[in-house]
Amino acid sequence: MSIADRVAWIAVDWGTSNLRVWAMDASHDLLAERSSDQGMGGLEPAQFEGVLLGIIDEFLAADRVTPVICCGMVGAKQGWVEADYLAVPSKPPSGDGATQVPSDDPRIDVRILPGMKQVAQPDVMRGEETQVAGFLRGQPKFDGVLMMPGTHSKWAHISAEEIVSFQTFMTGEMYALLARQSVLKHSVAVKGWDDAAFEAALSEAISRPESVAATLFGLRAASLVGDQSAEVARARLSGLLIGLELAATRPYWLGQNLAIIGAPEVVEVYAKALSLQGLKAQVYDAQPMTRLGLIAAYDTMKGTT
Amino acid sequence: MSIADRVAWIAVDWGTSNLRVWAMDASHDLLAERSSDQGMGGLEPAQFEGVLLGIIDEFLAADRVTPVICCGMVGAKQGWVEADYLAVPSKPPSGDGATQVPSDDPRIDVRILPGMKQVAQPDVMRGEETQVAGFLRGQPKFDGVLMMPGTHSKWAHISAEEIVSFQTFMTGEMYALLARQSVLKHSVAVKGWDDAAFEAALSEAISRPESVAATLFGLRAASLVGDQSAEVARARLSGLLIGLELAATRPYWLGQNLAIIGAPEVVEVYAKALSLQGLKAQVYDAQPMTRLGLIAAYDTMKGTT
Repeated sequence: MSIADRVAWIAVDWGTSNLRVWAMDASHDLLAERSSDQGMGGLEPAQFEGVLLGIIDEFLAADRVTPVICCGMVGAKQGWVEADYLAVPSKPPSGDGATQVPSDDPRIDVRILPGMKQVAQPDVMRGEETQVAGFLRGQPKFDGVLMMPGTHSKWAHISAEEIVSFQTFMTGEMYALLARQSVLKHSVAVKGWDDAAFEAALSEAISRPESVAATLFGLRAASLVGDQSAEVARARLSGLLIGLELAATRPYWLGQNLAIIGAPEVVEVYAKALSLQGLKAQVYDAQPMTRLGLIAAYDTMKGTT
Repeated sequence: MSIADRVAWIAVDWGTSNLRVWAMDASHDLLAERSSDQGMGGLEPAQFEGVLLGIIDEFLAADRVTPVICCGMVGAKQGWVEADYLAVPSKPPSGDGATQVPSDDPRIDVRILPGMKQVAQPDVMRGEETQVAGFLRGQPKFDGVLMMPGTHSKWAHISAEEIVSFQTFMTGEMYALLARQSVLKHSVAVKGWDDAAFEAALSEAISRPESVAATLFGLRAASLVGDQSAEVARARLSGLLIGLELAATRPYWLGQNLAIIGAPEVVEVYAKALSLQGLKAQVYDAQPMTRLGLIAAYDTMKGTT
């Protein structure tokens, strides 16, 4: 029996920078996974179908339609087909609200899940709501805050299985711009770390957020007129920016029940930063949460052939 | 009489992005000026002499040596020839400390003025110290703070004709990265303005600096789920980043005697921001100050042929 015979449906997490595909059987067991750096950020609308088929072709049976459930920036205005936003407060999107994508290939039925939006304090997410759905599948009674670090980190208040409100921080993107594209690129290492430098910068930024503005250029100057290493500069830059985020999100974490969901290496940095504030968070890898969220959506999907 | 016969020396402000050249007569009157976007940022060391000669050739007499006095990033490690840093507290560099640049052309004697450095709170400048020198040539008794906005804004304590201490902020570069290279580029206009949006964002950032982190992504979201215009987003981004700088520089401006030197359009924005804090600053165009500073350096130069 070929893998295509066993694949019941395909789960897809299609973000700005990456594409992840999971081939699932009828019991929601994972049969195979694939990933690619062909994120939506580098694609024109007409290219999405070809990219997807290039990856999932081996999973498709010729004689029936395989449902493909997608979440993430693939549903943004600049993506494949624009999907809705569900307004908070709300449960994460179910399969019902998914947007069907017209396709020329009779073997697939592609649906893109909605993102979520907040109107009062304008904010949007596409992808993280599916991580929330996956997390809630395992812990439906969770009442507290989910923190999802990444290029744009999200802090979401969760109660009664709903996303009550959320807020986005550009910390990851700011880090990348400053470390790789600003004058600091000459002084900030790509790898390496210094715990003491991270902790000092973090504490400085949390207690005096304005000091971040005053300190950034010093990361360059301290390597020109002092002997600061590029690894120390990297840890300090990270500490300053995460500290600024923690200063702004204090109501989200102070005395709260907190879980962090993300790529393990970045989760570890945030968990460390929060533990220095006396807060112990649960930590989770984002990928299984996203897959669980896509399973939850698939289970509620009507009209899938 | 050709212009080359009247040119006694040439003043050069060679920054990261731009090159400005002033042909001066023996009385320090300006005979001609030229500018180019061939800043040091885009040049290899071996290219500087050719670029300079391409611009000043018409000013050079064949039968004698014309002194060329340069300031700015041309003297950085990545520049033409690395010039020293003078440590604060100190008067701005005189011509004595300039670095002579080896040249194949017998018609020119090129010198690059030192920058300034601060060791205790690591910081450096290259170019602004010459603006300070120019300013002090007109107001030698000035005691207070000089603020020089730009890609990297500088705040310098001035007393007894010395730069006592200074601090650099990456506000201009942060603005450019966020407005042109981050996700905000889809929502921030290149032109246009909104005074009320600027003032609200400024005030928010000064009183709660951490709110900058919490507000940036909202500039994107408010155009996706609301009706915020790209001009309002531009003014808000500017207000947030300048507000963060003013929150950090309070000791530099609160109750201080302050002068702002820079490109007129950016000076105007900072002067407005400070006037909203009840502070009336003197304002000056940077270019004439730089030229005056180069004149001051030329006057003290020994050994120029």
